[in-house]
Amino acid sequence: MISILRLGHRLKRDERLSTHVGLVARALGADEIIYSGERDEGILESIRKTTKNWGGSFKVRYEESWKAVIKKYKKKRFKIVHATMYGEPVKKVMPKIRKEKDILVLVGSSKVPGQIYMISDYNVAVTSQPHSEVAALAVFLHEYFKGKEKGFKKAKLKIIPQKKGKKVIEN
Amino acid sequence: MISILRLGHRLKRDERLSTHVGLVARALGADEIIYSGERDEGILESIRKTTKNWGGSFKVRYEESWKAVIKKYKKKRFKIVHATMYGEPVKKVMPKIRKEKDILVLVGSSKVPGQIYMISDYNVAVTSQPHSEVAALAVFLHEYFKGKEKGFKKAKLKIIPQKKGKKVIEN
Repeated sequence: MISILRLGHRLKRDERLSTHVGLVARALGADEIIYSGERDEGILESIRKTTKNWGGSFKVRYEESWKAVIKKYKKKRFKIVHATMYGEPVKKVMPKIRKEKDILVLVGSSKVPGQIYMISDYNVAVTSQPHSEVAALAVFLHEYFKGKEKGFKKAKLKIIPQKKGKKVIEN
Repeated sequence: MISILRLGHRLKRDERLSTHVGLVARALGADEIIYSGERDEGILESIRKTTKNWGGSFKVRYEESWKAVIKKYKKKRFKIVHATMYGEPVKKVMPKIRKEKDILVLVGSSKVPGQIYMISDYNVAVTSQPHSEVAALAVFLHEYFKGKEKGFKKAKLKIIPQKKGKKVIEN
């Protein structure tokens, strides 16, 4: 199982980026996302609506304390993976991470508490350059699944890939 | 050469996502980004500052007309690649795209004009699911370079990857 924990969401300011983090988590194959930071029902609704329309069983919820989430998942024997530009290269550590049964991927926002680096089993960098938590999560999941794309069951809307133009089937 | 064209930027609303698009373009190995839509000097400055601190020769500029940009690049024999959830799977088309000498990658925002699908040489999808233009660009570039990370010359700041904690060298 792959769970994502979005750290430190701030209302308004992070709205679109946090939404993108959730959509990427779903589209690239994670099983659920937990938002911490400021409670934002709009984002939860938006992700749920996407799953309703586009299928699959992706779950989303809010939890106030990221510490409690990490504690709970450690107890369930999840390995903690922290996406950070300061970590080890994704290509280097991925073979080890792929062997773990369950992982909780921490996706930071502006400032991540120092202790996160210590309590994580893996600190993983997608390039050692500043860019985007949305991008880091996407590349991480893309690498994890070796580029294999997931199918989404019970979809109301489904895209048929086209060389030119758009084709969407409604069920 | 890999150029990125960000379409339809809107002041304030798209500020952070457009900045992430630019940072991802640089970090994941593109050579330049051109912003169209509403002129936003703040973003240009922010990306330039990143290059100044973190090295490399990434270029950024604003051009009012995306049509003029595409026309100019087509004349220079660039192939036009449009990142869109309606396109063909990235894994399928990438071998062909890698053989092109120069590409201009179009990265849309909320609404992309229909003609973009027609004038593009490749419409490329990173999953056929709704998610994020930041993520789509990141995975596209990651696939393009087969996960090989770029070096950045003349960097003032450089991260030394760590299992735990942060290590930054200042030059």
